[in-house]
Amino acid sequence: MLQIGLLGLGVVGSAVARGLRERASELDQRAGMPLVLRRVAVAHPDRPRQVPVERDRITDDAWAVVRDPEVDVVVELIGGIEPARSYVHEALRLGKSVVTANKQLMANRGRELMEAAEASGADLFFEASVAGGIPVIRTLKESLAGDRVREVVAILNGTTNYILTRMDEDGLSFPEALSEAQRLGFAERDPTDDVEGHDAAAKLAILASVAFNTRVVRSDVHCEGIAKLTQREVAYTRELGFALKLVAHARDLGEAVEAAVYPALLTSTHPLASVRREFNAVWMRADGAGELLLYGRGAGGEPTASAVLSDLVAVARNRRAGAHGRVACTCYHRKPVREAGERVLAACLVLRVTDRPGVFAQVAAAFGDEQVSLHSIVQQNRGEEADVLLRTHPAPERALRAVLHRLHAMSVVRGCSPLLRVIA
Amino acid sequence: MLQIGLLGLGVVGSAVARGLRERASELDQRAGMPLVLRRVAVAHPDRPRQVPVERDRITDDAWAVVRDPEVDVVVELIGGIEPARSYVHEALRLGKSVVTANKQLMANRGRELMEAAEASGADLFFEASVAGGIPVIRTLKESLAGDRVREVVAILNGTTNYILTRMDEDGLSFPEALSEAQRLGFAERDPTDDVEGHDAAAKLAILASVAFNTRVVRSDVHCEGIAKLTQREVAYTRELGFALKLVAHARDLGEAVEAAVYPALLTSTHPLASVRREFNAVWMRADGAGELLLYGRGAGGEPTASAVLSDLVAVARNRRAGAHGRVACTCYHRKPVREAGERVLAACLVLRVTDRPGVFAQVAAAFGDEQVSLHSIVQQNRGEEADVLLRTHPAPERALRAVLHRLHAMSVVRGCSPLLRVIA
Repeated sequence: MLQIGLLGLGVVGSAVARGLRERASELDQRAGMPLVLRRVAVAHPDRPRQVPVERDRITDDAWAVVRDPEVDVVVELIGGIEPARSYVHEALRLGKSVVTANKQLMANRGRELMEAAEASGADLFFEASVAGGIPVIRTLKESLAGDRVREVVAILNGTTNYILTRMDEDGLSFPEALSEAQRLGFAERDPTDDVEGHDAAAKLAILASVAFNTRVVRSDVHCEGIAKLTQREVAYTRELGFALKLVAHARDLGEAVEAAVYPALLTSTHPLASVRREFNAVWMRADGAGELLLYGRGAGGEPTASAVLSDLVAVARNRRAGAHGRVACTCYHRKPVREAGERVLAACLVLRVTDRPGVFAQVAAAFGDEQVSLHSIVQQNRGEEADVLLRTHPAPERALRAVLHRLHAMSVVRGCSPLLRVIA
Repeated sequence: MLQIGLLGLGVVGSAVARGLRERASELDQRAGMPLVLRRVAVAHPDRPRQVPVERDRITDDAWAVVRDPEVDVVVELIGGIEPARSYVHEALRLGKSVVTANKQLMANRGRELMEAAEASGADLFFEASVAGGIPVIRTLKESLAGDRVREVVAILNGTTNYILTRMDEDGLSFPEALSEAQRLGFAERDPTDDVEGHDAAAKLAILASVAFNTRVVRSDVHCEGIAKLTQREVAYTRELGFALKLVAHARDLGEAVEAAVYPALLTSTHPLASVRREFNAVWMRADGAGELLLYGRGAGGEPTASAVLSDLVAVARNRRAGAHGRVACTCYHRKPVREAGERVLAACLVLRVTDRPGVFAQVAAAFGDEQVSLHSIVQQNRGEEADVLLRTHPAPERALRAVLHRLHAMSVVRGCSPLLRVIA
């Protein structure tokens, strides 16, 4: 049998404990052995809980769980880098396999931990760390092992996608949509990580590492959030036929890779354009398979537990076959991660400008001076200040950012939206 | 190294040979060993070919390839049941692993071959047999190993989906759309297998077996095609907001499973409704992950070769880890496959009737007599004969078929469309 030590019994941990109980017979047959929850470490062992775990299996001593000689595999659901890193490291050092849902840990300390796993011949699985119930890590490492993935565009944060869907479909403002998401449990009380794109950036670092076989860490990922978006940008760009989404975008350029999170405009036929509410999706382009899309629930206790339980079955199957470490670290390249300065994309911008003759010319000059060709400038309303929607032809990222810099310095420009890159 | 014996060098086989050459370095690093194409069997060895295979590696003797002691793994790309089955069986008997793209073989003789693989401890992988470049087999067997899949709705045939897309978006008739698909290479000269649903039914048998852990064979799958569909059904049902698709639908009912292929009406928000042209997609509902969608290219040389090459990497990884047979046959249940008679679905029908008073009443009586409740009856045009679109409330499949039987026997009914079940 496979004896499990569980660290953390929150929403995901409880769903894992329930799954082990309710699906015991199926898991047993698939794994070739019973999966048994031996010990659980939590911060408050005496808190009442609706989980099928006997009180005497619960402790507040995570080290005791990690070092229990009867524990074969440690499931880490604490989150954050420390002390999770120390526990995972110790478990691996002791030759135990580890299953984690911890995106911060894998995005920041993935290399060190994968090396520790390889050194002791243990498995370190992290399917649940990216996109919850969507099985994208194993798809990249195994199902596409015979292919070459060149590009990934993904919606990896359900909170922001929910907010943008409500702003788009129901005309809510950003603050309105955010409070609703908080009320429904889709957003944290402090929503910074989600709305600033940090959550998606950590997940993209992991995804890009696995997709392109080279290490990408959190700090490599350029990150722009949606906190400054208003109903104006959503409404004006919808009229152009675009869907505004927070996307995680990574490309393998051969000698280097790039990875960034930013609000983007998707053409209405793009498979990601119809991903609504809290759903996540990962679109990929590979040499052989062509375009692929995986769509599903990217968060929540049950979907995330589904990934954890599947990783546990993989650990058991490897144990049974004597094959721990069968698919270990796949980052065999050492490619630099470069700023996306050379990338060529069209973009839209919404400016709030002083409404007087000559302003179009002044604004247009900022684009011309950086060799960015304009597709259209359309004034959206009138008043002392007016909104102007600008749309460029494809131009290098570097030039677009230089334009933004010039616009910010102009006295006629009273406000400027985030840069909205267009993904066709 | 892993030495490969390839049977068949058509569109997929050529793409496999090219992939082995062009991605050699990536494959080597992922597999942990070089993948080497040792011998290839084809019907006409002297035919000129645009593939990177030396003439002296090509033979017309498939048995010599299968029995070559240097060949570690046999890739079967011949198709059909015999002689493919004999070659695969012999390879497995000799302890060689097998990768196949053969849906007929797996849908009809899967059990026997999986047993042969288990007996000799070899791997038998068949990712390419269903939905080409969409990695659905490994997703079900491994990524969802900790979950329970309850339902699968899929678009598994690119030919019919292309035809229906052209009929829907561009108003083509069925024969027009079919000839275009043939001209573009999306349909065979004899399109029976595709348009009658047989191709999708074989794939669904495999998919259901893997999804529900119980053997479903081709003859278990009820099958209705699209050959009798006309522009009328497509146009009338689009006005109701439906997309008409040929779907493969399977459910796990606990004590039994059901599996059927039929033309269906998808509500416009269903993720499968926007799957256009030759693309395929598999929608699943699982206890933990909730709803999942995989979308991509279901056919063609390169996408199918992507799946074959990924299976070859899996064989090599198992060889390196000494873990052949790590994930063998997963059909550990013995559930009956039952006719979908109890299934409750709404449906639409288009009747061509004699246009005279009293016909609505007569037609409606056929539904009432079978306890099928009607949602609407709408006459679509006038003339000596008229089209009538009927839409029911949810009713048992058995009752719907009984209504159809009654309608066919009525003299006022001059024509009747296929039953178009509604999937919400």
